[in-house]
Amino acid sequence: MKDLLGRDEAVTVEEALRLLAEQDLRLPGTESVHIEKAYGRVLAQDIVSPENLPGFNRSSMDGYAVNAADTFSASDTMPVYLQIKGQVLMGEKACIQIQREEACRIPTGGMLPEGADAVVMFEHTNLIDGETVEIMKTVSPGENVIRFDEDVRAGETVLSTCHRLRPQDIGALAGLGIPVVSVYKKPVVAIVSTGDEVVSPDKPLSPGEVRDINSYNLAGMILACHAHPAKKGIIKDRFDELRAAVSEAVHTSDMVLITGGSSVGTSDYTAKVISGLGSPGVIFHGVAMKPGKPVIGGNINGVPVFGLPGHPAAITVSFETFIEPLIQRLSGKKTNNVLPSRRMLKALFSRNLSSPAGREEHIRVTIERRNGALRAVPVLGKSGLVSTLVRADGIVIIPMNKSGLYEGEEVEVRLFRD
Amino acid sequence: MKDLLGRDEAVTVEEALRLLAEQDLRLPGTESVHIEKAYGRVLAQDIVSPENLPGFNRSSMDGYAVNAADTFSASDTMPVYLQIKGQVLMGEKACIQIQREEACRIPTGGMLPEGADAVVMFEHTNLIDGETVEIMKTVSPGENVIRFDEDVRAGETVLSTCHRLRPQDIGALAGLGIPVVSVYKKPVVAIVSTGDEVVSPDKPLSPGEVRDINSYNLAGMILACHAHPAKKGIIKDRFDELRAAVSEAVHTSDMVLITGGSSVGTSDYTAKVISGLGSPGVIFHGVAMKPGKPVIGGNINGVPVFGLPGHPAAITVSFETFIEPLIQRLSGKKTNNVLPSRRMLKALFSRNLSSPAGREEHIRVTIERRNGALRAVPVLGKSGLVSTLVRADGIVIIPMNKSGLYEGEEVEVRLFRD
Repeated sequence: MKDLLGRDEAVTVEEALRLLAEQDLRLPGTESVHIEKAYGRVLAQDIVSPENLPGFNRSSMDGYAVNAADTFSASDTMPVYLQIKGQVLMGEKACIQIQREEACRIPTGGMLPEGADAVVMFEHTNLIDGETVEIMKTVSPGENVIRFDEDVRAGETVLSTCHRLRPQDIGALAGLGIPVVSVYKKPVVAIVSTGDEVVSPDKPLSPGEVRDINSYNLAGMILACHAHPAKKGIIKDRFDELRAAVSEAVHTSDMVLITGGSSVGTSDYTAKVISGLGSPGVIFHGVAMKPGKPVIGGNINGVPVFGLPGHPAAITVSFETFIEPLIQRLSGKKTNNVLPSRRMLKALFSRNLSSPAGREEHIRVTIERRNGALRAVPVLGKSGLVSTLVRADGIVIIPMNKSGLYEGEEVEVRLFRD
Repeated sequence: MKDLLGRDEAVTVEEALRLLAEQDLRLPGTESVHIEKAYGRVLAQDIVSPENLPGFNRSSMDGYAVNAADTFSASDTMPVYLQIKGQVLMGEKACIQIQREEACRIPTGGMLPEGADAVVMFEHTNLIDGETVEIMKTVSPGENVIRFDEDVRAGETVLSTCHRLRPQDIGALAGLGIPVVSVYKKPVVAIVSTGDEVVSPDKPLSPGEVRDINSYNLAGMILACHAHPAKKGIIKDRFDELRAAVSEAVHTSDMVLITGGSSVGTSDYTAKVISGLGSPGVIFHGVAMKPGKPVIGGNINGVPVFGLPGHPAAITVSFETFIEPLIQRLSGKKTNNVLPSRRMLKALFSRNLSSPAGREEHIRVTIERRNGALRAVPVLGKSGLVSTLVRADGIVIIPMNKSGLYEGEEVEVRLFRD
């Protein structure tokens, strides 16, 4: 269905997300990287442990390696006496073998000698002379010992494909002796800026011109999503120039963002370019949300392409709503519906604010603490102002079926990345 | 006060944080960077706008620039007729000047011509012929116009020193024509690994040896804090070698982390090295927390130095508790006590778990959704096991004065970075 200007009618946010989710996409390939460089990368393989970790029975305390059965009657008042049979040195094979009623000095991390099955902490022992140690506490078999396969068993799947590698995961890979892993390539997201009035920030400005804000905002959000921004420069508002730039970007990138094009003419160019370059082309043109209503979603032969309105707040809201989940999908990461992907905060809304039904509204807010409670204060101002985004700490969403927010109503704030 | 082994008694977490907070630290300097490279960096200057943004009265709609007073009687049934006086071109100075009862075609983002003070959207107009347009709606002065200084006023402080630059902040700097900013240098955090049993992950392993897990875990957490990890290699457990390595690191870094050294002997070395290299030296040795009890905090002539126990979970907990806030401070960023610095999640604890009073306990948990509710399930296992960290989604803290958690009790989970 078309609106008065012959444009397709806006779809709901939910419908737009559903349309995007059902697209077939061309996924980036995989590459091998050293774990030093793999922080934040998404695994493209299961990690099956080639060996046991720690690989030997390891003391977790400074003390004496013993046969636990020898200590079963030990107490402060009735200690047990064991014969000292040398000591285990750190990082070396325990060559000693202990018999019943013998003990061997061992450091934290040391290898348990044969014959020992537990460690008594120094604190519970007394050295009588160089040959005898007094044991004042019972230990059970395995106490203060990390079993040879207790951390990881050989053959165990330690990490699964599609998992984003956190610091401790890289630590585990190092511990297992796996210095190189297969990961998905970072999605390359092209930014094509349009607008006859837009100039680069380090060029002088003539009357009627403005500097490029949006490609800088977008590049930062793309980086924060562990993807790679590729700026394609500022294109004049001409069909053939835009077509050439988008065509090139589709071939060299995994996603293309076209900024500007919020005026009717350019918006139509953008839609025509998207639909002319491949299939299925434009999948929605206009979304029932504010800001961000004029956003165009498309798919050129498996490469998602967005036409974004030129207003800074619309750029941020469109990015967080539509582009971030798609970058996530292109990154190879399994979606996790349990953990929030962003910092969220509950706060009380600071004033009454009405919102027309039939569209989802994204309100920029700052967070203040007043009388011990957190309050979300809307940053009012046009979506064309970058300063409203700079002043805001995050976003509160008023759903489509809600006619506004009351003063004191509890809201959930999605905080901007810091 | 000393414990049985002659070590200083553990301080509380609160006391340790207080001691760290009152240290005089040597702060990293500042540097100038291009905004393209300034994402996540901390400003070392106030940003005062050199000019007005957008710099001219700018249309926020496609339509006709008019004198609002001419439209005051306009309606669907009683339209007003204005004479069309050319059009404004995008990115160009509006050379036209309109008189009363004249209108001028203007695109979104176009410069308002002299004489005009509002824009009527196309949707509310009808083109009668090439010379006359029918206006069907009243606009008030300033409607659909962004005033020349509405986004930012010349002389206004847009961003303050000690603020971490987010994508939209970089966008605003670009918009104001400020391509280079002064930022604090990233703190360099040295990692000195100790342990006669520790070997690099790409070297073959002999019996009794283990691979270096901790420096990989630490490097990732340092990177996630926008700081720069500097690995200083694996040092043998000898006083003079450790002393030389720490001495070098103190001169080339802003913070030094010594890992390993959890056995009594090495722990004492570490404390002696820290106190021997400068003043005040060790400020606490042992903290009433689990895991992480043996952690040593120190300050060598303004450079914070930590001696960290070798257990992976203790490393993570010590880092999040003590090191992360200090990196924050060294980064120059103003502390924000209102916004959480990490993703937090409320969940119901899955089981009864007792915790001895007198120490703060950090429980690793996974988050599961069961019957619609989020549950935090503790990952049990020794703190020496890296696999418990790999399986966990985050940490639940049981405060010192609490004797445990009940099944079904609501807890706040600090999620690991993803």
